Amino acid sequence: MIPNQYQFELELSVRDYELDLQGVVNNAVYQNYLEHARHEFLHHIGLDFGELHDRGTDAVVHKIELEFKRPLVANNRFVVRLRAEQHGNVRYIFYQDIYRLPDNELILKGKVTAVFTNNGRPIRPPEDVVAAIKKNTIDR
Amino acid sequence: MIPNQYQFELELSVRDYELDLQGVVNNAVYQNYLEHARHEFLHHIGLDFGELHDRGTDAVVHKIELEFKRPLVANNRFVVRLRAEQHGNVRYIFYQDIYRLPDNELILKGKVTAVFTNNGRPIRPPEDVVAAIKKNTIDR
Amino acid sequence: MIPNQYQFELELSVRDYELDLQGVVNNAVYQNYLEHARHEFLHHIGLDFGELHDRGTDAVVHKIELEFKRPLVANNRFVVRLRAEQHGNVRYIFYQDIYRLPDNELILKGKVTAVFTNNGRPIRPPEDVVAAIKKNTIDR
Amino acid sequence: MIPNQYQFELELSVRDYELDLQGVVNNAVYQNYLEHARHEFLHHIGLDFGELHDRGTDAVVHKIELEFKRPLVANNRFVVRLRAEQHGNVRYIFYQDIYRLPDNELILKGKVTAVFTNNGRPIRPPEDVVAAIKKNTIDR
Repeated sequence: MIPNQYQFELELSVRDYELDLQGVVNNAVYQNYLEHARHEFLHHIGLDFGELHDRGTDAVVHKIELEFKRPLVANNRFVVRLRAEQHGNVRYIFYQDIYRLPDNELILKGKVTAVFTNNGRPIRPPEDVVAAIKKNTIDR
Repeated sequence: MIPNQYQFELELSVRDYELDLQGVVNNAVYQNYLEHARHEFLHHIGLDFGELHDRGTDAVVHKIELEFKRPLVANNRFVVRLRAEQHGNVRYIFYQDIYRLPDNELILKGKVTAVFTNNGRPIRPPEDVVAAIKKNTIDR
Repeated sequence: MIPNQYQFELELSVRDYELDLQGVVNNAVYQNYLEHARHEFLHHIGLDFGELHDRGTDAVVHKIELEFKRPLVANNRFVVRLRAEQHGNVRYIFYQDIYRLPDNELILKGKVTAVFTNNGRPIRPPEDVVAAIKKNTIDR
Repeated sequence: MIPNQYQFELELSVRDYELDLQGVVNNAVYQNYLEHARHEFLHHIGLDFGELHDRGTDAVVHKIELEFKRPLVANNRFVVRLRAEQHGNVRYIFYQDIYRLPDNELILKGKVTAVFTNNGRPIRPPEDVVAAIKKNTIDR
C-alpha cells in the first residue's frame, strides 16, 4: 500500500554499474531513478512521452532540488514514491522521495518542477493531458 | 579569462550518447558535467578524491539545486563555471553555472552543497584540505 | 521456465533515459544490461563482487562480442538469458542473449570472456568461487 | 601525428563518474568513448548523424568486438585512434583502438561493424555519404 501522501510508487534495485568509486550509487543516477519513476507514473495514468513528443509537445524539467539523506549501496532494494501537484496553468511539481527497502529508511527527497512546451515555449498542456494528470494529482 | 564571480572553468562539448529521445542532453547528464567540473577544480587546487577516500575521508554531496534555462543539443560546446564558498566548519557550497559557447547563453544554474564525512559522519575536513580550498574559495 | 540452453534469466524493461536520439536503446546500454545480469547470476549462485574485491580478487572482462539483431525501443520489456562455461583454469565464457517480451524476438547475442585476477594478474579463482560456478556451469 | 594505420584520433580523459566500484573505467563506458570518436570522425569528414536521421537514414551498429588489455583509472588521459574500411556495398568496419597517454600503452582493441539503414532495412548509403567516407577510408 502506498503511504497516504504519495500517489504512485515504483520499486527498483541498485545495479552494480550505478556505483561509483566510493561504493555508493553515483549522485547523477538518482536523477535517472526519478525520471524513470515520473515516466512510469505518466505512462500509468495513460500518457506517453514519445507520442506527446511526436505531437510537438514536450514535458520539460525546469528545476530539480535533491536532498541526499543516506547513500544506496550494492544490492539495495528501494522504492521511489511520488506525488504530483499542478501549480497555475503550466507548472507541475513532482515530489519524489526514495526509501530503502525493507527498512523504509529515507534515502533522498526530491522536488522536480516541470512545464509543458511546444517548440521550446511554455504552453498550457493539451486537454487530454490536463485531464489525465488532474484525475491523478492534487490541485493547490 | 574567467568572469569575476567565478574561480574556475572547464570547457566541454556535448557527446551524442548524452542526448535523449527529445534530441537534448538528458537532465541527469548535467549532474555528470557538474561533478566532473568540481573534481577537476579540486584536482586543480591539489586535492585528489581517490586519495582522500583511501584516507577515509569523502566529500559527500548533501544537496543539489538545478535550474534548467535552455537545453544543450548535439555538437554544442559549453563551459562549466564554478565558485566555491565555505559555510561554517563543515559545509561547502559550489555555485556552478553552464554557458553555451561561443554565444555565452546561460544553460543551467546549479548550487551544490557538500560536506566532508568520515565513515559516513560529517567531519571538519583535514587541515590540508581546508587550506587548499580556503586559498581558492571565498569565505562568507 | 528458462529455455534448455540457458541457466539463468533476468527480466527487465527499457527506461526512457536509456534511449538515444534515434529513439532506440543506446548500444552501450546493452553492456549495462549484460553486466547486471552476470552480477545477478553470480549473486544468485552465492558470489558477491564487492566481497570478492575486498578479498583482492576481481572478475575482469577480457573480451566482449555483441551482435545487434533488432533495437529495443521505449516501453519494451525484455529478458537477458545466460549460460556460463569454464574454459581451462582461468577463463569463463558467458553467453548472454537478449530477447524482447512477450514475443521472444532475438534482440542481441553476446559473448563475454572473463578472467579472475589478483592485483591485475590472472589467477586460478579461489576454491569457493570455482565450486559455486562449477555447480552452475557447463564444463567443456 | 596520427600513426600510419589510423586515419583519425580523438584525445579524451577519464571522468570520475565513469569509474566503477573496482576503481577502473566501467566496461560499458568504453563503448561511449568509441561511439563518440566515430561520430567525431564522421562529423570531421562532413557527415552529421542528426541530419542523416532527419533524412530517414541511420548508421546502425551491427556488431561490436572489444578486447580489454589494461584498465583506465582516475585521471588517465587517452586517445581513441580509428581506421574505417568499406566492405561490399553496405558494410563499414571501424577499427578503434584506445591508447593511454602519455605512455601509449594499449588499453583496448575494438572492431565495430556498421550498416546504413532506412526505416530499419539495410541500404546502400546515400551518394554524398559514400563519397565522404570513401575519401577518408581504405577500400578492401
